[in-house]
Amino acid sequence: MNGKLITFEGCEGVGKSTQLRLLKEYLERTGQSAVFTREPGGTPIAEEIRSMLLYKNFEISPVVEAYLFATARADHVNRVILPALEQGKLVVCDRYLDSSLAYQGVARGLGIDTVLAYNRYAVQTCMPDYTVFLKMDPLHSWRKQKGKTVEGDRMEQEDAAFHSAVYRGFLELEQRYPERYLTIVPQEDKLATHAAIVGALVAKRVIG
Amino acid sequence: MNGKLITFEGCEGVGKSTQLRLLKEYLERTGQSAVFTREPGGTPIAEEIRSMLLYKNFEISPVVEAYLFATARADHVNRVILPALEQGKLVVCDRYLDSSLAYQGVARGLGIDTVLAYNRYAVQTCMPDYTVFLKMDPLHSWRKQKGKTVEGDRMEQEDAAFHSAVYRGFLELEQRYPERYLTIVPQEDKLATHAAIVGALVAKRVIG
Repeated sequence: MNGKLITFEGCEGVGKSTQLRLLKEYLERTGQSAVFTREPGGTPIAEEIRSMLLYKNFEISPVVEAYLFATARADHVNRVILPALEQGKLVVCDRYLDSSLAYQGVARGLGIDTVLAYNRYAVQTCMPDYTVFLKMDPLHSWRKQKGKTVEGDRMEQEDAAFHSAVYRGFLELEQRYPERYLTIVPQEDKLATHAAIVGALVAKRVIG
Repeated sequence: MNGKLITFEGCEGVGKSTQLRLLKEYLERTGQSAVFTREPGGTPIAEEIRSMLLYKNFEISPVVEAYLFATARADHVNRVILPALEQGKLVVCDRYLDSSLAYQGVARGLGIDTVLAYNRYAVQTCMPDYTVFLKMDPLHSWRKQKGKTVEGDRMEQEDAAFHSAVYRGFLELEQRYPERYLTIVPQEDKLATHAAIVGALVAKRVIG
């Protein structure tokens, strides 16, 4: 596989979507191609699971939640990520394995190693080459500071303690995977944050 | 856990549903209580996954198929099987783990141990105490002999080679788990088969 897999991770409301859009525009402007995709989702089955996970009123236990995310990921890897990497493409994914490790492994209490085990066959050989971690405590997120209401999907409805636990999860993953974590502390100026992300990826020769 | 988990396994069309119904009637007639359930299904999430798996026109890869069954099983174990066993009940399940091992592990070629690994956290401590295996080559099933058409879900639409591979899978499991396999060769007289099943379960003191 000659392609590279870059994942974006971080808590809700820290500017992930904005930064992904800015990176996509940068790559288009500079004539570099990349496949942008997201989790959970990216294929018909994964989108159906996404709607079960996020919007339907099922009671979902932590184990089932972790299995559903792993199932959606298996399909996404199989149909989108692995074929693109095999064709040598750059793949940029909005959330991936580390979100499962932080949300279900740490915040839901299943344990990082347990959730890794669930995901072993889903991820196959597709571990992220680099993970852009937008490192910001969700209690201090820009969305919160600007008083915006959140959209209210299943994860966003969780309370502050849950989101703090997710954040602790990401901090633990940052320690665990220092070789692939590119930690970026978001600035209030989103273009400054964007420049830091581009700089980090250029330094790793993932983009030009 | 004082309860007992009995699973019914075997290929399509060998009389599993009829035998489950006859066992249920026998237990009711003799005043013995049991929880009858089925896989995939048994809970709202699992039923939704069942319909994705069996009836929707998704292209589903073997890995995703195995993950979907494991996900449905995780919910089913959590909400139905484990609580009933903890209350000391007898649980009778139409298909369970061994169907995944035979269908995805052997017939889809993922390997029995791989599919066992997928299911480890789904099944938790709920391994079957006894498995009633209706041992009949699907090429010789009663349904086929009587010229009935099959209903046409995803699995039933597979060809004869697939169903033969599933059968080989069950034969392998029968060798692997001799202590829990209760092998019953179905007779043309369904009441004779029923009597053999009751006899085997009475001998193991699972029912009276």
